[in-house]
Amino acid sequence: MNEKKQIYKPRPISGFPEWLPEERLVEQRWLDHIRRIFESYGYCSIETPAVEELNVIAAKGEDVDKEIYVLERLHKQQGDKEARLALHFDQTVPFARYVAQNFNELVYPFKRYQMQKVWRGERPQMGRMREFYQCDIDVINPDNLPLSFDAECAAVMYEVLAGLPDVCDPVTKEEKKLNVQLVISNRKILMGVCEYLEILNKAGVLNIIDKLGKIGNEGVWNLLRDDIGLTDIQINNLAQLTNNNVLIADNDDFYAFFEQARTSPFANNPLFLEGINELQEVAKNLFHIPLGGAAISISIVRGLDYYTGTVYETQLLDVPEFTGSVCSGGRYDDLAGSYINKHLPGVGISIGFSRLFDVMRQTKRLKIGAKSPTHILILLLEETQRENAHTKARALRTQGFNVEVFHAPSKIDKQFKYAEKKLIPFIYVPMDNDAKTWEIKNMAARTQTSESEGMKELLNARC
Amino acid sequence: MNEKKQIYKPRPISGFPEWLPEERLVEQRWLDHIRRIFESYGYCSIETPAVEELNVIAAKGEDVDKEIYVLERLHKQQGDKEARLALHFDQTVPFARYVAQNFNELVYPFKRYQMQKVWRGERPQMGRMREFYQCDIDVINPDNLPLSFDAECAAVMYEVLAGLPDVCDPVTKEEKKLNVQLVISNRKILMGVCEYLEILNKAGVLNIIDKLGKIGNEGVWNLLRDDIGLTDIQINNLAQLTNNNVLIADNDDFYAFFEQARTSPFANNPLFLEGINELQEVAKNLFHIPLGGAAISISIVRGLDYYTGTVYETQLLDVPEFTGSVCSGGRYDDLAGSYINKHLPGVGISIGFSRLFDVMRQTKRLKIGAKSPTHILILLLEETQRENAHTKARALRTQGFNVEVFHAPSKIDKQFKYAEKKLIPFIYVPMDNDAKTWEIKNMAARTQTSESEGMKELLNARC
Repeated sequence: MNEKKQIYKPRPISGFPEWLPEERLVEQRWLDHIRRIFESYGYCSIETPAVEELNVIAAKGEDVDKEIYVLERLHKQQGDKEARLALHFDQTVPFARYVAQNFNELVYPFKRYQMQKVWRGERPQMGRMREFYQCDIDVINPDNLPLSFDAECAAVMYEVLAGLPDVCDPVTKEEKKLNVQLVISNRKILMGVCEYLEILNKAGVLNIIDKLGKIGNEGVWNLLRDDIGLTDIQINNLAQLTNNNVLIADNDDFYAFFEQARTSPFANNPLFLEGINELQEVAKNLFHIPLGGAAISISIVRGLDYYTGTVYETQLLDVPEFTGSVCSGGRYDDLAGSYINKHLPGVGISIGFSRLFDVMRQTKRLKIGAKSPTHILILLLEETQRENAHTKARALRTQGFNVEVFHAPSKIDKQFKYAEKKLIPFIYVPMDNDAKTWEIKNMAARTQTSESEGMKELLNARC
Repeated sequence: MNEKKQIYKPRPISGFPEWLPEERLVEQRWLDHIRRIFESYGYCSIETPAVEELNVIAAKGEDVDKEIYVLERLHKQQGDKEARLALHFDQTVPFARYVAQNFNELVYPFKRYQMQKVWRGERPQMGRMREFYQCDIDVINPDNLPLSFDAECAAVMYEVLAGLPDVCDPVTKEEKKLNVQLVISNRKILMGVCEYLEILNKAGVLNIIDKLGKIGNEGVWNLLRDDIGLTDIQINNLAQLTNNNVLIADNDDFYAFFEQARTSPFANNPLFLEGINELQEVAKNLFHIPLGGAAISISIVRGLDYYTGTVYETQLLDVPEFTGSVCSGGRYDDLAGSYINKHLPGVGISIGFSRLFDVMRQTKRLKIGAKSPTHILILLLEETQRENAHTKARALRTQGFNVEVFHAPSKIDKQFKYAEKKLIPFIYVPMDNDAKTWEIKNMAARTQTSESEGMKELLNARC
């Protein structure tokens, strides 16, 4: 043919990440792990559409911050009357709308998880994702939500992050755990201190303290002085608190921390004391977390005014390339006040999944391996072997193995090369023209044994 | 408080389905099952962004049919220069773009599955979905793709559909298998007959025959006569073929069907003969499907010109409310010709997941049960039991159980009611103030036994 084809060479779209099959396999293992932990605590899944009515999203008044993508039908006709739709930018707004809509169908306390993509129409710039997975859990209950769920959310997320599979040292490639520290506080503590210090602009103070990680101590004190007009005494009092960290553990340091707080002058303020009591109650239900995995830091505030009590952040201790908190959240007073006439306090925590995955991927901290889920490749050396090869494959599949039969009789080298390229760990080799007997080759060990011997290795490898 | 809240009552958005937690649980089991079968044949997962550049989608020239949603940033500023983005309307266009972009990173034959939502901006009307899951598998190979994959795609999808869990009789509620029939043909057969009959407008004829299911025999013959201008002899010849169905099985009827085709006058046409030979080759690799589960019907053509050989459709035999084919596909000549200078023949098949799920749901053919994944609720009768209750919960979770601890000591009736509402099957009851010994209540059997006895039932129930 001499016809010249018009080739439109596609490029990646900035901000919309996409992985190769071998990367996707690890991403799936991460998502499976997260889902398994969420479900092990009894959280149920909900999934909402990618879109909401623009009104619903705008009801929270956050559309300006979060840069919303609105939808338009390409072939919309004049006179088509439809609500304006927009892609959701988080999972909280859809969750609130879902609860309002299905309020009487749900069982309370309602514990739900949600693992979906969200979209933010950021201006294109390096490193910013416009589409990414979030993995959220939340518990809500009408009128009054027990404090035990504040501890549960933290415990779940520690277990999720510390247990992420296929993480390795970037240099030695040895498998290792993600070294995380969950940091908690309670906003009532700083709010109470502000009251005690007779500071009127409490929200302003908290928003500045929230910048500690970015601009450091000096930066924060300067802003408090210059922007809010705090006195040196006020600033010293705040600094004394926000520099106060302690690991969560059933030990003397821990109890001394709370003793000191209760005997400080701030304890004259009821809100401060309430915050301290709540924080200790939550923390003492986290003693099972290995030492160093959980800490208290009064400086944690989370920017949003939304949170009213417990707040969470999570630091990756061994991944300097990852800035900020990988997993955050807190307790809020009312989930769905704009949509329903019910008082729904809740607590929730959210992993920014895709950014974490991408940083780990780019810094070579993921064990990227096989290019397919196949455990076993069955060789096909003669056409006469096809029927028995497929019968064998079906039998192995019912045992839970993922099995491919090579598609056509061809040179054995070619078939081995296919398995090597995909990193398929085991190969079934037919030993006669009708494939009535087999041997199993273990690709890592480079050994070939009888089927019964090889099956033992196969079963071991799967565990 | 006397302040009047502005309540914005949200409504469901037509065409964007969303399920209650108990329905979502079944949907997840379906999706897990489908993924497991796909992977058991060695298909690897890819996931592409929700969006493509509008150019990429338009390159296939299908945008008019499929009603595309384009995206617009709400706060776009003048001068922001960005490619126009649109939500994908299927998974084939993104797959083709992905392959073109990553051509050298993939191993061939490349077997991939994709289970994502797709969006179609249909005008709002009853029953039409604007957002739905598709579950696709495809195999592609440069230049030449072995016919064995045509059989594999059919085998995979039969196994997927016949094995869908939690399907029941709508009246008796007894669990049953979905009764499906996979129907295959090869477009070369009808193309060859048209050549033999010297019909010039082959595509026109095939498109009309494709309407058989909708307008019946009479309707098709009338259209062929009136619109295409076929003679009675031509029509009789076509009717003779398209009425010819046979079950796929290693029996006399099956071989007689092919014998008859090979001795018919049409066999003088090479394309017809090629189609017959390919069809038999594919079918004979499907003999393991139970009798009635797979059939040949020459009338299957699939509307799209895209398909060039094997074509698939799937009928639900016991669900009259479901019209059309639940799972379709076929062989195509070239996947990504518009994006890359490679010849990439492939074969693929796709389930319209959400429509199937929704029809089954609405016609009460799903076993909708528990409202959460929880296997065990641990009761909390005294605050003194909390620590041991949580220790027990952690131990049970490491054994693979999903466990909730009731959040606060409260009346035992209240805690039982919570378990009943959520259909939690087992309850751990503390037998002393410190929860050092336990009994297990089996909610279905209404029995309460020692922990060791109850654990046997628990382990059985999980199998």
